[in-house]
Amino acid sequence: MEGAKSVKELLASDWPMAGLAATEAFLQECQTFLGLRPKLEVFPATEAQLVQAGTFASNKAGIAWAPIPKRPTELPTAPWLLALDDIRDPGNLGTLLRIADWYGFQQIICSPTTAELYNPKVLHASMGSFTRVTVWYQDLANFLPKLQRPVHGAYLDGDNVHELSFSEQGVLLMGNEANGISPALASLVTQKVHIPQFGGAESLNVAAATAVICDNLRRQLRA
Amino acid sequence: MEGAKSVKELLASDWPMAGLAATEAFLQECQTFLGLRPKLEVFPATEAQLVQAGTFASNKAGIAWAPIPKRPTELPTAPWLLALDDIRDPGNLGTLLRIADWYGFQQIICSPTTAELYNPKVLHASMGSFTRVTVWYQDLANFLPKLQRPVHGAYLDGDNVHELSFSEQGVLLMGNEANGISPALASLVTQKVHIPQFGGAESLNVAAATAVICDNLRRQLRA
Repeated sequence: MEGAKSVKELLASDWPMAGLAATEAFLQECQTFLGLRPKLEVFPATEAQLVQAGTFASNKAGIAWAPIPKRPTELPTAPWLLALDDIRDPGNLGTLLRIADWYGFQQIICSPTTAELYNPKVLHASMGSFTRVTVWYQDLANFLPKLQRPVHGAYLDGDNVHELSFSEQGVLLMGNEANGISPALASLVTQKVHIPQFGGAESLNVAAATAVICDNLRRQLRA
Repeated sequence: MEGAKSVKELLASDWPMAGLAATEAFLQECQTFLGLRPKLEVFPATEAQLVQAGTFASNKAGIAWAPIPKRPTELPTAPWLLALDDIRDPGNLGTLLRIADWYGFQQIICSPTTAELYNPKVLHASMGSFTRVTVWYQDLANFLPKLQRPVHGAYLDGDNVHELSFSEQGVLLMGNEANGISPALASLVTQKVHIPQFGGAESLNVAAATAVICDNLRRQLRA
């Protein structure tokens, strides 16, 4: 993890950490968090060293490293889940984790073709939400039926999200940036959801569409 | 404009165009649009030439060029306007144009520090919406009072957007990606708007927040 925001989120989380290289000023700033991790290996570093070691063009804070957790294997249990079919762009996936986390969807199922969770661009765009969400990578055609829940799929046609009654449990399925939900998954969708359009754009981007549907859902069902 | 989507949106719009370099296949595909622009200078080009001339890593379609329209000087007239305070990222601005266009907010006022509308990244991210929206660049502290409308500003505190009554006319003001609405504009905000949070994320990104507020507004007031 690089940069103040992500490193702080990691320090504040209950994730195991392996090490931290950071400027004196940043270490000073994080004293409370560091007190809670007495065994963490800490290396003082200059800004120039952080830039050399990392991918950022400037870094006044630090770089932290942590073991990658095992993928979950048990079934998710939250009443509402987010399922992502073939979200290719790492920035989009990170933004989606942040939106899901904001709306209290902390269990997310990704198709195997979705961007990799531990890609630095995903972690960065998630603004720390990666520490609070659990992400499955599963073949959705096999996995969604095991969940035995209604599947709401976002389509350009479908029932108006403003007029929908959401059930207590379900899966919100969002499709690929350019192609939407794969035809192979269409038969699993029990409720097509459409966001009403008032102007000329052909579609909303996947992150905006997800935020709008989550907002409509949470208006009815609290997390 | 580069690539199939943007060039097609430009051809389909009523914007003046200066020229088009395109592959034979793309010219074939656009025959109907080209018929409506008999004076347009068209240059056949190979994919390799398009890549050499443009910024895309691959381009099977074309590159079009058009004169940059003059900035509008008259006052905007739409009942609801979007105002953007210091949106620095061109991708964010493009996405915001697309969201605004989807929700029928076709008049947008940007602070002078907001990204430049005709930056290729803005045009590309707008997915063609740049042809349908009118964008002012104005000092917001001077310009917003001239509009004589209520100003709804997005804040992390404020009144719950789910419970708000929107007036018939207004301005929706969205702030900088990291810092929100400038303190200098705070006194112009007549209604602070907050999107309720149900999980752990500290904030939503500006595009998602804009989409959610526009969706709540359009649920009450049709475009």
